[in-house]
Amino acid sequence: MPESRHNLRDIYPPTGPELTAKSWQTEAPLRMLMNNLHPDVAENPHELVVYGGIGRAARTWEDFDAICASLRDLEADETLVVQSGKPIAIIRTHTDAPRVLIANSNLVPEWANWDHFNELDKKGLMMYGQMTAGSWIYIGAQGIVQGTYETFAEAGRQHYDGNLTGKWILTGGLGGMGGAQPLAAVMAGACCLAVECDETRADFRIRTRYCDEKTHSLDEALALIDRWTKAGEAKSVALIGNAAEVFPEILRRMQAGEPLPNGRPDIVTDQTSAHDPYRGYLPAGWSVAEWHAKQETDPKAVNAAARASMKVHVAAMVGFWNAGVPTLDYGNNIRQVAKDEGLDDAFAFPGFVPAYIRPLFCRGVGPFRWVALSGDPEDIYKTDQAMKELFPENEGLHRWLDMARDRIAFQGLPARICWIGLGDRHRAGLKFNEMVASGELSAPVVIGRDHLDAGSVASPNRETEAMRDGSDAVSDWPLLNALVNTASGATWVSIHHGGGVGMGYSQHAGVVICADGTPEAAKRLERVLWNDPASGVWRHADAGYPEAIDCARANGLRLPRILG
Amino acid sequence: MPESRHNLRDIYPPTGPELTAKSWQTEAPLRMLMNNLHPDVAENPHELVVYGGIGRAARTWEDFDAICASLRDLEADETLVVQSGKPIAIIRTHTDAPRVLIANSNLVPEWANWDHFNELDKKGLMMYGQMTAGSWIYIGAQGIVQGTYETFAEAGRQHYDGNLTGKWILTGGLGGMGGAQPLAAVMAGACCLAVECDETRADFRIRTRYCDEKTHSLDEALALIDRWTKAGEAKSVALIGNAAEVFPEILRRMQAGEPLPNGRPDIVTDQTSAHDPYRGYLPAGWSVAEWHAKQETDPKAVNAAARASMKVHVAAMVGFWNAGVPTLDYGNNIRQVAKDEGLDDAFAFPGFVPAYIRPLFCRGVGPFRWVALSGDPEDIYKTDQAMKELFPENEGLHRWLDMARDRIAFQGLPARICWIGLGDRHRAGLKFNEMVASGELSAPVVIGRDHLDAGSVASPNRETEAMRDGSDAVSDWPLLNALVNTASGATWVSIHHGGGVGMGYSQHAGVVICADGTPEAAKRLERVLWNDPASGVWRHADAGYPEAIDCARANGLRLPRILG
Ligand SMILES: NC(=O)c1ccc[n+]([C@@H]2O[C@H](COP(=O)([O-])OP(=O)(O)OC[C@H]3O[C@@H](n4cnc5c(N)ncnc54)[C@H](O)[C@@H]3O)[C@@H](O)[C@H]2O)c1
Ligand SMILES: NC(=O)c1ccc[n+]([C@@H]2O[C@H](COP(=O)([O-])OP(=O)(O)OC[C@H]3O[C@@H](n4cnc5c(N)ncnc54)[C@H](O)[C@@H]3O)[C@@H](O)[C@H]2O)c1
Repeated sequence: MPESRHNLRDIYPPTGPELTAKSWQTEAPLRMLMNNLHPDVAENPHELVVYGGIGRAARTWEDFDAICASLRDLEADETLVVQSGKPIAIIRTHTDAPRVLIANSNLVPEWANWDHFNELDKKGLMMYGQMTAGSWIYIGAQGIVQGTYETFAEAGRQHYDGNLTGKWILTGGLGGMGGAQPLAAVMAGACCLAVECDETRADFRIRTRYCDEKTHSLDEALALIDRWTKAGEAKSVALIGNAAEVFPEILRRMQAGEPLPNGRPDIVTDQTSAHDPYRGYLPAGWSVAEWHAKQETDPKAVNAAARASMKVHVAAMVGFWNAGVPTLDYGNNIRQVAKDEGLDDAFAFPGFVPAYIRPLFCRGVGPFRWVALSGDPEDIYKTDQAMKELFPENEGLHRWLDMARDRIAFQGLPARICWIGLGDRHRAGLKFNEMVASGELSAPVVIGRDHLDAGSVASPNRETEAMRDGSDAVSDWPLLNALVNTASGATWVSIHHGGGVGMGYSQHAGVVICADGTPEAAKRLERVLWNDPASGVWRHADAGYPEAIDCARANGLRLPRILG
Repeated sequence: MPESRHNLRDIYPPTGPELTAKSWQTEAPLRMLMNNLHPDVAENPHELVVYGGIGRAARTWEDFDAICASLRDLEADETLVVQSGKPIAIIRTHTDAPRVLIANSNLVPEWANWDHFNELDKKGLMMYGQMTAGSWIYIGAQGIVQGTYETFAEAGRQHYDGNLTGKWILTGGLGGMGGAQPLAAVMAGACCLAVECDETRADFRIRTRYCDEKTHSLDEALALIDRWTKAGEAKSVALIGNAAEVFPEILRRMQAGEPLPNGRPDIVTDQTSAHDPYRGYLPAGWSVAEWHAKQETDPKAVNAAARASMKVHVAAMVGFWNAGVPTLDYGNNIRQVAKDEGLDDAFAFPGFVPAYIRPLFCRGVGPFRWVALSGDPEDIYKTDQAMKELFPENEGLHRWLDMARDRIAFQGLPARICWIGLGDRHRAGLKFNEMVASGELSAPVVIGRDHLDAGSVASPNRETEAMRDGSDAVSDWPLLNALVNTASGATWVSIHHGGGVGMGYSQHAGVVICADGTPEAAKRLERVLWNDPASGVWRHADAGYPEAIDCARANGLRLPRILG
């Protein structure tokens, strides 16, 4: 770890209604960059790591400082250009152009692998941007709760008549995103047993009320699950252990007919950082300390051992699947690694997107989110209320907002996420802008989304797995999404490679727009929050999904070759 | 070849001062798309192929028609989104946004290979955009003449004291770009022997005055070269033959001490379409007819045979290099194929960019070009004159413009290219805009460039080969270039994958802007034609090239981490 990547400073974004930059259009990215490194938000802020293994917000601390200084100084017709977390240039553009343009971790395909990336990363030439880490719209584990909740709830609908009471979910990983699993499971009505090797990660989830209990003993964990499922109580337990050891052991017990709650887990998934075998996955039989040490001294050995363990881990998941247990890959590329390691049926069980998410994408529905730049939770509660009034008929949304307010502790700047689609997003954006203009909210809000959205990602093992027309790997779509959002006047736009599934396996784009209460912002909000979800609808319409074609027609999209 | 890719229509762009679309901002891409398929411009217009093997302007004829219809209908605040040659959506943007946004041939890296591309292409899901084919700013072989001329002239400076009189250049390929070689050689003062297997291609070059003579006999070709070099006359001959057979034979004669003009070629290079072994390279021993037939019936056999021949071809080039002959790869990826085929020293000789072009890129100097939408050659002659007045001190530019006017026949809409850099490009653009406004030019002009430019491409075997800091494969740069040009208000912007070096080996961006004579266009021209070359300067400054850092400082670029 070069010195310039380590620092003991704690970063807190400015809050309140006073500007520290020259306008809200530049204050917004400044606060959001800093918020990404807030001690309650980032997984490892002193090393600039926001989430997902090594997903960083800036390349080095010097780069972080230079980005902040540049943003504080930026004029209303200037744009900051950021290359893999390093601020490169300040250029003259115009007021309707983005204030920041970002490209992270992009490599020419033939060189788009971990070895080459690591070489460049070590030389200080690159940074891993993950999805929302390097594009400054990560909002802590809440961001992922809604997606995970939607997924578990949909699995419950498909497999258990919509009722997960008394059921339990087996998973691995309580990191930046995986930490949302116990809470999402509980919100969806199920119990959760989450295997996590790093006790500090489990402690963090318990401290932030995302997980209920912690134990070092598999027997104790299963006893708790047994008690809760029998009582119909939705609760969660973190088991400190290695998923590559625990999953096969539970499968063994199941196959041997040994006692197990419900005789088997009701849903199986995993969110270890398998996308990064060098840093994200503890090999079976290793201690965490040994793992961290060897990451520095012998990364090749870590890689080899982690990959071998993933094969065992996935083999156990295939075992559950073959026994009829709903099993899903949660987008960490673990099936691909197992397959590369020689597990032929690694892709026996599906990814969560084709199984549960794609029908939403066809309508441009995805992880819409917003953040109160004021830092005041009241601003979010007011927007929660506004959303309910704006969409009185959307019961799921109302239930979600109530549960979220009750169960989700804010991390860093208060934020909210809810999955809405084309036709609704721009209405929410315009409403928030009015609330800023009228003073109902105490400061502007930013509106963004995960890169995992309908039109913003090409990732054949995850978001675009098994597309109807076979266009899984076509990455024209996310690149066009970035160009469209730039042309529509978003506040910042990003193009990333890698992310959750790792080097070589995805390209995706991010967008954030600031509702500062001005009429100019309203125009931009209307364009961006229409065109961005529309790009998801037309991407799926072009692939031949009837739901997407219907949605396009219903919303009057002009698609020359699709609607004629 | 699906029916929708074949058509006997001849396409000619509208000319003159009357609009066929709603404004010049949409008339411009319309005329330029059509110009790309003009019978005098495109290599195979009936199959939509502009140049470079299968580089197309639109995916199918239906797509071409739909793009034209969309452009004719497009309003001043609307944008057409094009995905791999298919018009997807018409969206609301604003007047300072691009009118067309294009992404061609982009694939997620792990799938970014010819096999997967061909599968998608066959299914009708993709199109190969090459560089300026799918981005509608190809201007026929003239576009490449200047680059080739600059390269040969620089080779002459480095190896022959700036005097190529009596020297001869051995090369292969007289296709869309390679056809410029004989003329560029002659303009640089040298003779040229170009091996071309397809007689129709050679005939086309002779008809357009790019090549002087044609023969089927190697002995006759060498006799002509011998006569011309002895007489100090700069002339060129096309030899109908296979480079994989002719190069080794000339090497053999040289090594055996048999008679050869000057005892050896003075420069060796190649421009067969080696980047595409399925369609671009005739295997040794095959007839052209057999080759075309097998492309349909047995593409795998073609691929294998072509690759084997390329190995022989490159081995001969390495032989010349080892004998002290200046030898260069002209960006067709032939060294990579030979290396993959087991030729260990395939990269013994350099690519043309690090050898001759990079110092220009450090100052943002690259293939600036413009086209008279009027169709009137007089408009170009007036801009030639204006360029001379604008840059009175640039002798090279004056010499080039005089020779170009004398020797280069226009193809399609009259166009001009000249390599100028940061600080000069926007002055040229503003001048042309004034000339449109004053009526001196009879209609607007468009201004663009090749994707092979200072800041717009990542291509480790070509434009970014052997970068000083090892950042050859970092493709954040071309993606940022596209975002910057979109944010600056270019008329159309494109992001491509593949191109001259083939699938997996490059990512690059294109930009075109229309000078319609309005004050609004002037503002956009100033921004785009400053920021676009500036992106080349900062990309090279970030890589540590002192010339680029000096250029950035001299031009007052604001580069927070580079200039401090
Ligand atoms: N949208 C999506 O598709 C999506 C959503 C959530 C997560 N993911 C993927 O899931 C993975 C996890 O994301 P994250 O942000 O939580 O990463 P993270 O690195 O913050 O957390 C991973 C956690 O797994 C633990 N872990 C590693 N190896 C283990 C093992 N063998 N047994 C038990 N625990 C182990 C680590 O200690 C860490 O706490 C990533 O690959 C991410 O891309 C994808
Ligand atoms: N900027 C650059 O880096 C640059 C510039 C010019 C050309 N190139 C590259 O050079 C190649 C040629 O480009 P193009 O547009 O002229 O392509 P093209 O396909 O139009 O022409 C290639 C020509 O080579 C001929 N040919 C194929 N195999 C042959 C063989 N074995 N012997 C003799 N002739 C053979 C073909 O008949 C054809 O005329 C491409 O790979 C292109 O990318 C790169």
